[in-house]
Amino acid sequence: MSEGAAAGANVVPLIDYFIKEDGVAFAGRHLLIDLWEASNLTDPGYIEDALRRAAEEAGATVLSVHLHQFSDTGGVSGVAILAESHISIHTWPERDFAALDVFMCGTCDPHKALPILKSAFNSSALTLSESRRGLVG
Amino acid sequence: MSEGAAAGANVVPLIDYFIKEDGVAFAGRHLLIDLWEASNLTDPGYIEDALRRAAEEAGATVLSVHLHQFSDTGGVSGVAILAESHISIHTWPERDFAALDVFMCGTCDPHKALPILKSAFNSSALTLSESRRGLVG
Repeated sequence: MSEGAAAGANVVPLIDYFIKEDGVAFAGRHLLIDLWEASNLTDPGYIEDALRRAAEEAGATVLSVHLHQFSDTGGVSGVAILAESHISIHTWPERDFAALDVFMCGTCDPHKALPILKSAFNSSALTLSESRRGLVG
Repeated sequence: MSEGAAAGANVVPLIDYFIKEDGVAFAGRHLLIDLWEASNLTDPGYIEDALRRAAEEAGATVLSVHLHQFSDTGGVSGVAILAESHISIHTWPERDFAALDVFMCGTCDPHKALPILKSAFNSSALTLSESRRGLVG
């Protein structure tokens, strides 16, 4: 209880960003996305643009993007930090493979990022799983 | 086959960072970690130190750490980008909750990060799942 609430004045509403749905509460949806037979895996500028477009499509706000390129394979690792959590990417160009995760809280829909990512990396085979993080009954 | 292999000279070994284990190959292990009844969730400096210690314990190399603090709750979102993938954290101090993920390829053991993270955030209740990313039979 806040001091304001104790005094019965200037009550500050309790902040709670957990999602309430289907009789449960949870922090957000976390998608793990494996893209196979993929391309465009070695250009950090292209990858940043794809992450930004995916975040926008899902209704998220990008706070910053940080990418690192490895010198031996040209693979790229990095993340877009969102106001609503993150999108990460790690690419293995030698396997035509990329592992991404899309974690979003609030009213964002991480599934809307999928077509953008699949198209950006020309992937013809995708493996997807979803977890509700912070799930409480 | 590379040109070198075709010529039978100057053969460049094929780079392949996938892990081979138990008759399968995969890119890395990805842990999703929900920490409940947690504290120390609003101090970016403390959180960065915890992520760095967790990475070190798992045998990983930190390339950079990027954290963002939200002004309303004091919650922190961010990531440690590793040479072997990433550790992310998002905190909901109003729920005494933090959602982390630890994704590591190569010879790192992401499970070794768990005791460091649980202790750093004084969590008395932890939910854990593991996915092998990029799994091929």
